Amino acid sequence: MGAMNRRDLMKMGAGAMASGLAAAGPAAGLVRASEESVKQWGIFEVAAQGPDSGNPFVDVSFGARFTIGHRTVEAAGFYDGNGTYKVRFSPDTAGTWSYQTTGSASELAGKTGTFDCVPARAGNHGPVGTAHQFHFEHADGTPYFPFGTTCYSYGFIGAPLDAETLANLKAAGFNKVRMCLLPKPLGKRQPAAMPFERIGGAQPPQAEDLSDSSTSSERFDLTRLNPAYFQHVEERIRDLMSAEIQADVILFHPYDAWGFKAMGAEADDRYLRYAVARLSAYRNVWWSIANEYDLVKSKSMADWDRFFRIVEESDPHGRLRSIHHSRVPYDNAKPWCTHASLQEFDFDKSAERQAAWNKPIIYDEIQYEGNIARRWGNLTAEEMTRRFWQAVIYGTYATHGETYMTDEGQPVWSDAGALQGTSAARILFLRKLLEDSGTTGLMAAENPYYPNAGNPDRLILYYFDYHRPAEYEFPLPDGGNYTATLIDPWAMTKTAVAGTFNGKSKITLPGRPYLAMLFEKAAG
Amino acid sequence: MGAMNRRDLMKMGAGAMASGLAAAGPAAGLVRASEESVKQWGIFEVAAQGPDSGNPFVDVSFGARFTIGHRTVEAAGFYDGNGTYKVRFSPDTAGTWSYQTTGSASELAGKTGTFDCVPARAGNHGPVGTAHQFHFEHADGTPYFPFGTTCYSYGFIGAPLDAETLANLKAAGFNKVRMCLLPKPLGKRQPAAMPFERIGGAQPPQAEDLSDSSTSSERFDLTRLNPAYFQHVEERIRDLMSAEIQADVILFHPYDAWGFKAMGAEADDRYLRYAVARLSAYRNVWWSIANEYDLVKSKSMADWDRFFRIVEESDPHGRLRSIHHSRVPYDNAKPWCTHASLQEFDFDKSAERQAAWNKPIIYDEIQYEGNIARRWGNLTAEEMTRRFWQAVIYGTYATHGETYMTDEGQPVWSDAGALQGTSAARILFLRKLLEDSGTTGLMAAENPYYPNAGNPDRLILYYFDYHRPAEYEFPLPDGGNYTATLIDPWAMTKTAVAGTFNGKSKITLPGRPYLAMLFEKAAG
Repeated sequence: MGAMNRRDLMKMGAGAMASGLAAAGPAAGLVRASEESVKQWGIFEVAAQGPDSGNPFVDVSFGARFTIGHRTVEAAGFYDGNGTYKVRFSPDTAGTWSYQTTGSASELAGKTGTFDCVPARAGNHGPVGTAHQFHFEHADGTPYFPFGTTCYSYGFIGAPLDAETLANLKAAGFNKVRMCLLPKPLGKRQPAAMPFERIGGAQPPQAEDLSDSSTSSERFDLTRLNPAYFQHVEERIRDLMSAEIQADVILFHPYDAWGFKAMGAEADDRYLRYAVARLSAYRNVWWSIANEYDLVKSKSMADWDRFFRIVEESDPHGRLRSIHHSRVPYDNAKPWCTHASLQEFDFDKSAERQAAWNKPIIYDEIQYEGNIARRWGNLTAEEMTRRFWQAVIYGTYATHGETYMTDEGQPVWSDAGALQGTSAARILFLRKLLEDSGTTGLMAAENPYYPNAGNPDRLILYYFDYHRPAEYEFPLPDGGNYTATLIDPWAMTKTAVAGTFNGKSKITLPGRPYLAMLFEKAAG
Repeated sequence: MGAMNRRDLMKMGAGAMASGLAAAGPAAGLVRASEESVKQWGIFEVAAQGPDSGNPFVDVSFGARFTIGHRTVEAAGFYDGNGTYKVRFSPDTAGTWSYQTTGSASELAGKTGTFDCVPARAGNHGPVGTAHQFHFEHADGTPYFPFGTTCYSYGFIGAPLDAETLANLKAAGFNKVRMCLLPKPLGKRQPAAMPFERIGGAQPPQAEDLSDSSTSSERFDLTRLNPAYFQHVEERIRDLMSAEIQADVILFHPYDAWGFKAMGAEADDRYLRYAVARLSAYRNVWWSIANEYDLVKSKSMADWDRFFRIVEESDPHGRLRSIHHSRVPYDNAKPWCTHASLQEFDFDKSAERQAAWNKPIIYDEIQYEGNIARRWGNLTAEEMTRRFWQAVIYGTYATHGETYMTDEGQPVWSDAGALQGTSAARILFLRKLLEDSGTTGLMAAENPYYPNAGNPDRLILYYFDYHRPAEYEFPLPDGGNYTATLIDPWAMTKTAVAGTFNGKSKITLPGRPYLAMLFEKAAG
């Protein structure tokens, strides 16, 4: 796959054709910019021809300043191969923006132009940020409830598995996916491309059967990134954006056969800046500094902190930033971390974590539905469903993953491919329940007798987990006048309880565990 | 009920008529002793007539020294009403014992006699002590696996509920029961008697409906214990002994309407010494210094430590001693504590607890099977069964309790009465599995991939809890040559797996959670 053509660029604009990019702009020939008009939260791109000799990744800089009124945003560009340099910007404000390029080569610097940013199409709510202390919302104020999954290899596994994965993501209703930017070993399967230039030719030297503990015979020039690799992953992120699925892009990870987890600081930092310059204009991008960072033994805590700061400083769009641990939690109170991305399932510790970090918490690994022998990979769908409800009732979020055994050579869902499990439908049921409730995110009750969460002026949601009282006197606020709906999270049923409720309200319950009760403030 | 008659005394001897007690012995008239022969671990009693004026509980002392060969054991006596003083001794060694009484009144002191201790009947394994670091065994070396329940009010609830409770305990197959020595409020029901003399008459002044948070209008003379009350409880303990059920006697508790939880040190200590003098000769007695000690706000840690030391020093039989907490764990490393009696169900912390205390652990409250509204009281039978298996697989033990809603005025099982639940049968299944295995107590594997416990030269037991790998390569010891049995703890089935296994052994599993696998070393 080569550099983006005009049609590719048009796809980038918030899914709306009118915000596409085109070879047009003030500078003829060597510099092309997208059309004079771009939609809010779409992508405006300036491409320029520059040096293609030496090492453009190391020797040449390119970027632009984007200005509206008194506000100026600087964005770094990136080299896309074949002498083409690009800089991208996703405007958050409607109006007329101007830009001026900067660059270490004369043909790249000092180019200027303007474009109009017009309001987004209906249904585009903009990028996701944190809101209401422990929650998320889109830039237009629409609540966002992360109900994501994990497909680590989706970005680089190649056709047809990537398209199948996307179709399955859409069908299952997940609105976020955790995906690695650097490749993982795929057994006998080769990644669609490699992120750095091969030493000794573009093709792998031999067919290798690689696992996380393998060492490939391939060698790479870590000073030269491979634009084709990143173009490929980028296309996957763009497809996710079109499907309104957030891409939680994992920048480093320990599952590696090629040495990419131990490249050294210079190559690490160059790669990071490249990824941010290239991808941050996509409004669905989140940065996950690493997966299981503490399993990457070649890096220190100072490295992880530096990566956070590089991403924070070099990302003109301020996308969300987190880091995912295995056993040693990161200090999520650090200022560059926007939310916690945990590997835990002791949800009852959420209140102390929220107090310590004062940020949203996503339990990004709560083990996997499946049947493999690894102890983290064989939850029942019922247990996965239970854990999602626990997360929500403690005012936090969870992420799905699935590891059912597959036919020889086929990936499990946590890498890419086909879903086999039955928790996804229940997770979507819970997501819809929250989205339909009109709430902005549930706040966990403080020291409740039974865990519950909500916004008492709108709704209160109880989840009884393994408890099954035959009746319970719910301590509702006085003067609330609530309706009550019994919810079976597994059967996905909602049953109205007759009457309205106010203050202490005793309600007979079915005597089965794993049920929920939703109280909603009645109108008037 | 009055002082014990000959027939009562005969019942005391290990359930065997030949070891009964009788009015016989060297001193005529005022002093009577049991027959010249008593079975090992039975009870030899010396009764003497002494002062019945003043306050015998405060003013008079009585006791005896029991001697065999060069060994002498001192036992304190107790006042049993009507001028009768008694001292009891349960000999642990066969042979001829002599005794000499001591007392502050001339008619009590200096009486002497001898008796023969003959071997116990077959099937009487003697009292239970700790063994093998984290486990228990009877005095004759027979392993004892505590699979108990909780009937707090069994000792004082009175007929016919006490007999029903005993019948239900036997039918369910529990081999230990936690029971309070001091009364708990029973609603409108009155305890069979009260442990201290009433001020203003023997009958309660009015019908009261008492709960744990009530304050009774009754007043008591805390310097005068009521022998009838203790005779009544003692009869319950004797019935348990006949049924081979250990009586985990709870000496203090916070559920009180009469002020017994805040009597002051002098009355506390007098009551303790009385209880020990009276009951410790029963070979099935264990001392639980308190239930939920940390909820008794009137006592300090120094008080609890003192109670332990009083019991330790005054009990000539050295019965087991523990204390049960609610939220603040006791320092079970203290030397007077023989084992930990916890209220927790985070069994995966057992290894660190064992390392800290180096003693057996019984999770004596793991919540209750039932359906009441209290969050500790509505487990499913499946969840209760699961928790017992978790306890065992971490090399520890658990205690059952049940709180199903009952008809008005009827106690729930955790006080006394009728079992409604369905976990008891599964608990008995697990107990029989251990007893039939010939093991001395399972040692938890250190840092296992999946928790398992056993004695590798005899058996290894896995419990997969919520995990359900479709197949698993069990890391069995090399050279073991084990048979494998798949166990369904809920269905109570055992299914032999074809073949024998040795070293790493991959076995296909049913793909359902909550299953166990027992490996037993094949003969030869």
